[in-house]
Amino acid sequence: MEILKQRIIKDGRGAEGGVLKVDSFLNHQMDIPLLNAIGEEFQRRFTGEQVTKILTIEASGIGIAVIAAQHFGNVPVVFAKKTKSRNLDGDLYTAQVQSFTRGTTYEIQVSKKFLGPQDKVLILDDFLAKGQALQGLLKIVEESGAKLVGCGIVIEKGFQEGGKNLREKGIRIESLAIISEITEGKVTFADEFGK
Amino acid sequence: MEILKQRIIKDGRGAEGGVLKVDSFLNHQMDIPLLNAIGEEFQRRFTGEQVTKILTIEASGIGIAVIAAQHFGNVPVVFAKKTKSRNLDGDLYTAQVQSFTRGTTYEIQVSKKFLGPQDKVLILDDFLAKGQALQGLLKIVEESGAKLVGCGIVIEKGFQEGGKNLREKGIRIESLAIISEITEGKVTFADEFGK
Repeated sequence: MEILKQRIIKDGRGAEGGVLKVDSFLNHQMDIPLLNAIGEEFQRRFTGEQVTKILTIEASGIGIAVIAAQHFGNVPVVFAKKTKSRNLDGDLYTAQVQSFTRGTTYEIQVSKKFLGPQDKVLILDDFLAKGQALQGLLKIVEESGAKLVGCGIVIEKGFQEGGKNLREKGIRIESLAIISEITEGKVTFADEFGK
Repeated sequence: MEILKQRIIKDGRGAEGGVLKVDSFLNHQMDIPLLNAIGEEFQRRFTGEQVTKILTIEASGIGIAVIAAQHFGNVPVVFAKKTKSRNLDGDLYTAQVQSFTRGTTYEIQVSKKFLGPQDKVLILDDFLAKGQALQGLLKIVEESGAKLVGCGIVIEKGFQEGGKNLREKGIRIESLAIISEITEGKVTFADEFGK
């Protein structure tokens, strides 16, 4: 997605250890017209899939998902919670997610009320690197009996193995920008898969 | 806001200790057309204020804020983070927030890059009860030198003191539904302020 790549080049900043900072437009301050362009592009890629629900994970995924939902006929968005909450009760789907950044494991949770065999689910998130959070969401979709349409990712770190591993399992991953390398602050893009 | 109150009556559930569960449409599963109606109503109430930025706090505030931003001329949304993040660097505005629910205190953070004296800030959030998170956001706006336009809240628990205390300080709080009582699962609304 060209305008996204241009924006990453203009405003993203590469840092130590393969970190890409996009806090000025994606995951701290959010650029609303860009989020709409992203939502439109996800819709274009998943045209005809009759998505009934978008699933994401707090926090940065939420902004992307709710704007994108407007381009999918206003389907409901469900976000997985990373911490136990008084707002969730009853039966929950859960999955363990390993965080390499923090060196910890946490549990993500989705209420069983909001995901079931009648759903066709599109998973959306801002980043795909090692794919741990995405694997947790996929486990929850599988457990719910819903049909997985695929995963829409804004930025994939192609130099980490998450996307590759999931594609090898036959899961459809649509990443709008795939980064092959971050060296000395310079970002290089790979060709996109599934364009 | 009548359709919000009707939705709370229909799908909200009162629980022990003044808890109101709105997880089917607001803070776990999110109803996109309702979020748009909420955004429109905030815009109506803050018409003419020339908001340049919307500030919220992760996680549930994000969905409300990004949809609302579309009704305020697509101004950027900044969300305060509740945990230290590799995605934030450089100078930060911080505030301590006491959580009565969890019995802990946490720090919220906003990058200084995204809030300054040139901004007219509207704060949006899903709930106002004791007002601790909102006070943290207000401290950050004050520290930044930005002009505070006011606070837009989806659901205020009028039986707790947060809204009253902040209004007494002269802060404009617009709450779309104010609950005066939750007893035996039944929700009673107060008259709205500033309608």
